[in-house]
Amino acid sequence: MSQDDLRKDLGRITTSSMADVIELRIREYLKKKSFKPGDALPREIELAEALGVSRNVVREALSRLRMLGMIETKRRRGMVLANPDILGTLERVMDPLIMDEDTLQDIFELRLVLEMGLADILYIRKTEKHIRELEEIVENEVASTDHTFRIKNEIAFHGKLYEITGNKTLKRFQSLLMPVFGYLMSTKTNHKSGAVSHKDLVAILKNGSKLEFREGMYEHLLPHFDRLEK
Amino acid sequence: MSQDDLRKDLGRITTSSMADVIELRIREYLKKKSFKPGDALPREIELAEALGVSRNVVREALSRLRMLGMIETKRRRGMVLANPDILGTLERVMDPLIMDEDTLQDIFELRLVLEMGLADILYIRKTEKHIRELEEIVENEVASTDHTFRIKNEIAFHGKLYEITGNKTLKRFQSLLMPVFGYLMSTKTNHKSGAVSHKDLVAILKNGSKLEFREGMYEHLLPHFDRLEK
Repeated sequence: MSQDDLRKDLGRITTSSMADVIELRIREYLKKKSFKPGDALPREIELAEALGVSRNVVREALSRLRMLGMIETKRRRGMVLANPDILGTLERVMDPLIMDEDTLQDIFELRLVLEMGLADILYIRKTEKHIRELEEIVENEVASTDHTFRIKNEIAFHGKLYEITGNKTLKRFQSLLMPVFGYLMSTKTNHKSGAVSHKDLVAILKNGSKLEFREGMYEHLLPHFDRLEK
Repeated sequence: MSQDDLRKDLGRITTSSMADVIELRIREYLKKKSFKPGDALPREIELAEALGVSRNVVREALSRLRMLGMIETKRRRGMVLANPDILGTLERVMDPLIMDEDTLQDIFELRLVLEMGLADILYIRKTEKHIRELEEIVENEVASTDHTFRIKNEIAFHGKLYEITGNKTLKRFQSLLMPVFGYLMSTKTNHKSGAVSHKDLVAILKNGSKLEFREGMYEHLLPHFDRLEK
């Protein structure tokens, strides 16, 4: 058997596949030892020696954890475990242009689920100030077929709803989903809005009940739900 | 000024901070050139030369993109752009033990929003087979104060609901949130269930209306919503 065949059949161990292994190993170590945010990690050279691998591989694995926000470097203290930025990484990959059709559709539905589920928390957290801010947004709204204008409006109105929940993770999550939504709105031909407008929804949120709001939101999103039925 | 002071004040450029820059640069390049999944990337050495940096730094940056599932290595074709695994990275950081209190609370609320928003898609996608599967799950349910049993039940029942939506991203997203939910259930003292049980919800899903289901889900989750009001 030639050296080339052997290499092909075995599959060469690349630095990257080693980094996969080392990343997992370090992750497991942190878990087993119950590391808490702020705790100092062993130094790169110590990890390399204990694992019996090169510092390059360890550096590559640590670099990934750093990117995930799981570790950060503190002056004088070296590397410490950090509160991971759970949405930061999602942000990096949420590009509609490189997502497959199924995932795009999934994300689109996920957004519908979120919008329909907002009512309860909105009714707990809404204030008069919030309502005034929403009223300002819908005041400038006019019926328009201009795509860019519609998208801007969507983002302003629905974004504000998420803001009212006071839930920072939810708000950031929604802004992550927005590009996907904008992308689909620009590629699908069905641009019809529901019978209930943003303005109507604000009026309900101001004076109506939670049930009315939910029903209103459903009517607002109805063209999208109709498409799911097909 | 001593060399040490200078170093401290300027902030040393580490390989990791270089990798941040290079990662961003490659990401922007892929975007500008409209790379699509399957397109071959330039080789590591070509990137290093074009960027005027060491191969080590480029390798570190590429390793991050590989971890995000944005690139993969194909035999003979080298590195190609891939459909990113948008939840794979989230999975890595979703550890309740290292998340701060605010984020835990945010995630908990996000889960409530999702559960309340499921009804519309459930009523579009549910089949008789799904109902039978749910009936099997709730059949074995007994009132229990055993924590592990309760968690297992929660996962089986609510997990099945997400499965019925047929939305793979949503289902995976929910399994990611589950550890957080389990963690909070084990640390909070208030373990009360709502007046509407899993069994009741299945009965409604089988014969009741979407509105009844949503109202039922709200009653089921009421102890959690009550806590938000405080």
